[in-house]
Order: sequence, then structure tokens, then C-alpha cells
Amino acid sequence: MPHLLIIGGSDAGISAALRAREVDPACDVTVVAADRYPNYSICGLPFWLSGEIADWRDLAHRKAEDIAGQGIHLLLEHTAQAINPTGKTVTVVDGTGHSRQIPYDKLVIGTGAVPARPPIRGLEQPGVFFLRTMADGFALHDFMAAQSPASAVVVGAGYIGLEMADALTRHGMKVTVVEYLRSVLTTLDPPLGLLVGEELSRHGITVATGVAVEAIDRQRQRLNVAGSGGFRAEADLVLVATGVRPNASLVAAAGVEVGRWGAIRVNQAMETNVPHVYAAGDCAETYHRLLEQCVYLPLGSTAHKQGRVAGENAVGGQAVFSGTLGTQAVQMFDLVATRTGLRDADAREAGFDPLSVQVETWDHKVYYPGAHRLHLRVTGDRRTGLLLGAQIVGHRTAEVSKRADVFAMALFKRMGVDELNDVDLSYTPPLSSPWDAVQMAAQGWVTEQSRTVPVPNEVIG
Amino acid sequence: MPHLLIIGGSDAGISAALRAREVDPACDVTVVAADRYPNYSICGLPFWLSGEIADWRDLAHRKAEDIAGQGIHLLLEHTAQAINPTGKTVTVVDGTGHSRQIPYDKLVIGTGAVPARPPIRGLEQPGVFFLRTMADGFALHDFMAAQSPASAVVVGAGYIGLEMADALTRHGMKVTVVEYLRSVLTTLDPPLGLLVGEELSRHGITVATGVAVEAIDRQRQRLNVAGSGGFRAEADLVLVATGVRPNASLVAAAGVEVGRWGAIRVNQAMETNVPHVYAAGDCAETYHRLLEQCVYLPLGSTAHKQGRVAGENAVGGQAVFSGTLGTQAVQMFDLVATRTGLRDADAREAGFDPLSVQVETWDHKVYYPGAHRLHLRVTGDRRTGLLLGAQIVGHRTAEVSKRADVFAMALFKRMGVDELNDVDLSYTPPLSSPWDAVQMAAQGWVTEQSRTVPVPNEVIG
Repeated sequence: MPHLLIIGGSDAGISAALRAREVDPACDVTVVAADRYPNYSICGLPFWLSGEIADWRDLAHRKAEDIAGQGIHLLLEHTAQAINPTGKTVTVVDGTGHSRQIPYDKLVIGTGAVPARPPIRGLEQPGVFFLRTMADGFALHDFMAAQSPASAVVVGAGYIGLEMADALTRHGMKVTVVEYLRSVLTTLDPPLGLLVGEELSRHGITVATGVAVEAIDRQRQRLNVAGSGGFRAEADLVLVATGVRPNASLVAAAGVEVGRWGAIRVNQAMETNVPHVYAAGDCAETYHRLLEQCVYLPLGSTAHKQGRVAGENAVGGQAVFSGTLGTQAVQMFDLVATRTGLRDADAREAGFDPLSVQVETWDHKVYYPGAHRLHLRVTGDRRTGLLLGAQIVGHRTAEVSKRADVFAMALFKRMGVDELNDVDLSYTPPLSSPWDAVQMAAQGWVTEQSRTVPVPNEVIG
Repeated sequence: MPHLLIIGGSDAGISAALRAREVDPACDVTVVAADRYPNYSICGLPFWLSGEIADWRDLAHRKAEDIAGQGIHLLLEHTAQAINPTGKTVTVVDGTGHSRQIPYDKLVIGTGAVPARPPIRGLEQPGVFFLRTMADGFALHDFMAAQSPASAVVVGAGYIGLEMADALTRHGMKVTVVEYLRSVLTTLDPPLGLLVGEELSRHGITVATGVAVEAIDRQRQRLNVAGSGGFRAEADLVLVATGVRPNASLVAAAGVEVGRWGAIRVNQAMETNVPHVYAAGDCAETYHRLLEQCVYLPLGSTAHKQGRVAGENAVGGQAVFSGTLGTQAVQMFDLVATRTGLRDADAREAGFDPLSVQVETWDHKVYYPGAHRLHLRVTGDRRTGLLLGAQIVGHRTAEVSKRADVFAMALFKRMGVDELNDVDLSYTPPLSSPWDAVQMAAQGWVTEQSRTVPVPNEVIG
């Protein structure tokens, strides 16, 4: 009976474990998890902290009993300290400090990521928080309950930053979002980032972009946040949400290779360079289907897919991770912002000749009540007509995220922008138009392309 | 300057006209429209009749002035009476009975469809309505305003029947829906049709299936509807919504071929058998991309696509209609029901070995408020693993229709069911799950397939 050992009890690790048991019900699977919260949806923490979710226990994708019920051995509050690939063992330490060796036939590393700590003086002070683990969530929750903070500064305007700006606003806090780059949500091109910034302002949030936060100083009970260009803000609470870095410190001594972002290098079978050792999720690199090379793009949806591949292959399968498209979605207040594929600048850097065209249209026939404007931005290769990416910003009821998925499907199959117009998409007046918004955007792109590149249609393809 | 003549001022005709002018701004385009309402969204009539739309004028996709502004000559209230392909003229009659010949270089026929008249005695009586044209809508609207009917029988449980059952219920009417087939909305497989029937019942509608309506008799101010199996219902209003048949009576004398449904035969360039004569929309056959043959499937979204192809080709283009996937969506009350691709029985008839698997899951992470159950039914070929069709029923806020479009994209590219799991679809807890519902359904199908066909994975492909 082969023994599969998995380090990490979050998305990648549990996905690997479940898939291994599904493919080979005879295999012996042990998951080593650092905390008591295996398979929790840390993506859901902002919605518990906002008050939208009453009980943090509901964040569990699966209960520990359900995981155990699948025949998976869970070692909670155990930390892996060393991998010995020669002897095929992992040294783990339990909560009491007791250390032991666990042997493995196959090993999956799913140690996730840790918050990036930007070079800001004063990060260690009370009232300054990161948000990555359940423990981080509890600490912030307890602080809010005990101190009833009236104001907050959120450093970083990515997904977590924006979701938390929404969450803290729901508690009546006066919120300031500070972003180092020139627009918020830089996973989108700046014109769409601008729309997201406007949504924040509409909900009373102060947005400061192009500001490097330099120091956080405590004066009496208040935190003074100082940044470049004379930026100053005072708040009761500071949340630092400036992204993550891979948690891969464990692997270096074992000879497991890491790449330029410090993430574990893997192939599309999720194998590392060390025999019998796989890696998946936020600790590992991600193969990008459009760039045809690895990137570091830690996302829960990717962790699930990579974990599934690693688990299947660890028990003898031949699964292949097909690659990320960089598909991402976030909801804040009434807005949803999504992207799939490459941004304009990404595409240029990758050697394409990108043309990005933005189209504003309705999500459904405007005569039917509740129609909302959608802002769609399509990036395609000017020369070949190939779709390279798409971004959509619109109301949360406007089927924005699954429209992004229509584009994701097109990217997955390397379709031309114009080819989208050939697809028989669903239409009913309360939900769409005879040409879906996705197709109107594609038509806008094709028109613009034909204006700028006077080549015959058959060449455009 | 080539002269393009278009018969029909609805979706297909106007799409053809607009596309022709877009591709060749020098071309001369005339549209002959039978009524005064060119480019009206007749799909929107139920929502005006329901009271959700206040002004019927809002149903115009474009105003007549906007169409004229595109350099298109509109001949309203003109009816085409004969096509003379030898002399390349069409005889039209205006509202005053005056007849004349209009010459053409290219002709597009977009005469649409007319309601099917089932063999029911008494259809001609006051209080019995069809719903196809704006005039039909006005007649029903006026009757409701004048008579304030308290009850209605809707004959036919397809899209229009169900939308109108919703619309009439909103006016406080007691509504009975009678369907000849064994379940409502037979564009779905029966298990999903059942869910739609339950939604109707939940809103107080009486549903009778497997009933052939035979006669409508008027007694005093009431209509008595009698059908097979002893069916009896009394109502103030009867709406007959039993589908449509192509309006192609014009073409026979001109030697334009029609097929087995009475629809005009066309190739994928939307050419008829007669030189220089194209047809598009509900009067024509539709190439089915999966069946690789023509069917009769009149839908607004298809009419737009076919019209666009016909218009482009009429001015010298090389456009190809890529074919329908049978994608359809309808919203009634709080429910959306969608289908794309083949139903189980369609697939069997087409020579596939269909396996249909139904999966029930949440539209988004259940911990986030407002999660709804989705019922997804995936049909795939048991032997090859090819996706053949998908049906989804769920709440109107659950992004049902664009999830159907994710399946439509997969069908368009002839993907295997399992391949859906490789696609990087968007995830954020308020809108999805790390594996989208579409992927959970695909996984359910693959599991079931592997149970029933014990072949190695690589064969399943």
C-alpha cells in the first residue's frame, strides 16, 4: 500500500489528498496541517470579517470529519520541519514540540504562501494586521470586537485590500486605501482600475494611489501612517494587504529547486526536480497557458487544480495541469471586476502586438428592468486577430464573472476575437441581448482592428 | 451601385441591412417591412404585457430614424407579394393597395414565422389570442385593459407560454398552462422540465401536461377549454402559444426551395437555391453545428447571426454561418432555465451513445449569503467523452445563462466533458466556487461515465 504524504492542509493539499483517494482507494494518505483549520476557505475571511458570514466555521470547504471520512489521515497542528529525500522521510513537530519522522513513497508539498512584508517601519505594532491565515482572521476580528475602531488604513489595493475596504466600511469605519501603483486593482488595465476606484469613492473610501507607505507610528491609541509625496493618514487600524510570497523555506535544504519568485519549480505534472516529490498551490510556480512558461500567480482556483493533478499523479496517474489563464474575479460593494488572459502590457512584454479596445454596453436588453452598464475591455493581437485577454467591470447582478468565463473558454481554445461572434450564446431579454455583451465587445475590437490594420479579412482570421 | 433588397424588417432583415452597409458603405439597401414596427424585439412582448415594461416603444432594438440614419431605405407597411427571380424584381403592395415592382441585384428574404395553429376548434373567437407580432401584442393588451380578465388558459408550455403565464399571473389572473407533451418546457429533458413545472405551481399556476386541447367554446363571457383525458378549464382569456411555422409562402412560386419543415433551404452562406437570393431568420432552416445538418430552430439570436452573414455576403463577402448549438434561455418568476446542445433523446437519435448526468450544487460558496441551488444536467457521449449538451435550471441571480454559455463555448470547440475541468474559470466566493458549478457537473459526468464504461482513461479522452 503506497504511502502518500502531503504537507499542507489548505486547498492544494486537500485537493491532492481527495483526488489520490478517488483514483486509488487503496492508497494511504496523510496530510500534515500547521493549524487546526484544514480545508478552510481563506478567500472567505473578508466576508466573515465584514459580518456577512455569521460563523467562521462555515468557511470550511469540508469539515475535518468529512476529510477523515474519505480515509485521509489528518495530522493537525503539525509542522513539517525538514524533508529528507534520500531516506524519503519528513520531520514533523507537533504542538507540544515532539518531533518525529514520517516516511513517504510520494510527497506533495502544499505549504502555501505567507504575506509579503513591505519595507514599512512599524509593522510589528498592535493594531497593524495581515490577513492570510485563520489565526490572522481571528486576531483582526478580536481587535475589532474589543476596540471598535472608527477608522482604518488598508495598504494595498489588490483583491484582499479591496474586499477588506468593503468589509471595514460595513462596520462603519472611515477607510483609506493606499496603493503603491498608479491605479487600484492593477490586475486590470488602468482605465478599468479607475472605475473600481470610483466605486470605492462612491462608498466613502479615500483612495490614494502612487503612494509608498513608509512608516506606521503609534501615538496614544492612534496609528499614524506616513508615505511618499507627503501622504499622512491617522487610523485606529492598519491592514497590510500587499500580496503574498511562496512559503517554500522548507524545501531548499532538500534540494528542491525554486524559481525567481522563490516558488517551487514544477512541470505540468506538478513534479519538482526531486524524484517522488510534487508541489502544488501557492508555494509553487504556475504554468501559464498563453505565455507558455511558468509564472507566480497564487490563486485558490489554481491551487485546487494543481493539487488534483499532483494527487492523481502521486498515485500513478498521468494528469497534466493545463495551465492558468490568469482568470480572476473580485466583488466589492455592488461591483464585480474580472480579468482573464493577458493585460495590454503583459501581452506587449510577451512579444504580441496587443490592441485593447474598451466597449460599454448593457448586460441585458435595456427595456427590461434592472439593466446595468458593463465595461468590457478586449485585448487581442493586432496582427493575427488572436484573443489575448479580456476584462469586465460591472454590477454584481450582471453575470460579469461568467461572462469572463466565456472569454476564458475562448482563450483556452486560442480563439480569434472575431470567432466569438460565431458562437451561439444564450439570449433572453432579462439576461442578455441577441448579441451578448461579450460579442458586442468582440465586434468593437474587430472594427477597431480593421481600422488600424488595413489587411484583408481572411488574413485577420 | 448594387441594390440590395430585403424583405422583412425584423431581426434577420435589419441585421442583414446593417451589415451590408457596414461592409460596403456604397451599397444601396431597401428594407420592405409589413408593419410599422421595424426592428422591434418581439421577444420582449411578454415583458410589456406583464407590466414590467411601461412603454411598448422601448421594445425597439433601434428606432426607424436610426435605421434610416444608417442609410437604409425603409418601406414600412409594404408587403412583398411575389418574387420574380428572372427579372430580379419583387412585387410589393403598400397600405393603400398600390402595387409596384422593386428591382434588386441581391435579395434577402427575412419574412420570419407565423404562429402555428393547432387543430383546436374555436380558435377564431374573441378572447383567444396568439402572440407573434406587435399587432398581436396590442390586441392582447387592449383586451386585458378593457375586460380585466380574471383567469387565463395558456395553451403550450414553451418559452412564450411560460413567459406569458408569468406575465398574466402578475396581473392577478388565475392561470392554467396546458401542454400537449409530457412535461413543460420540452426544450429541456423531463427531469429539469419537472423543476420548471414546480416553479409554476409555486406561483399558483395550474399545470396540465399530456393534454391535447380540442375545443374552445364561448358561453356568455367565458371560454370553456376542453381537451383530451377529460380536461376542462374555464377562463376569460386563452393564449395559444404552440410554436411557430416559417412564413415562406411567398417563395414557392419563385422556385425557392423549402425543406421538410416548410422553411427555406439555405447553405452556410445563407444562399438559397436561386441565384442572388439569400434567406435568414425564422423563415429559413438553420445549420446545426453538432448535428451537421439543417434543422428548423427559429430564435432571435440565430436570426441576428444569419442576417449578418446574409447581409455581408450579399455585398460580396465570404461570411459563413457557423451553426446553431440550440442554445436557449428563458426566465419565468425567479427561475432561469437554459439549454445548449443536444437533449438526451436528440443525441441518441443522432447516433451518439448519450449519457446524461444531473448534478445539484450551489452557484457560489454556500457560506456567502444568497447562494442558490443549481440543477445542471450534462449530456456527453459515453464512448468518446465528447460533450453533447448541457441544461441548467436555477435562480435568476445565479448566473445560469452565462454558465450555459460556458458549455456553449465547449460545444462550439467540440470539447470533451472532462476537458472542462482544465479551464481556468473565475472564482470569488460571492459568485462561484474554486471548481465552478459547471466543472462540478462535468466531474459528476466523468465519474458516472467511468462507472458505466470500464475503459482506461486515455481512451475516454
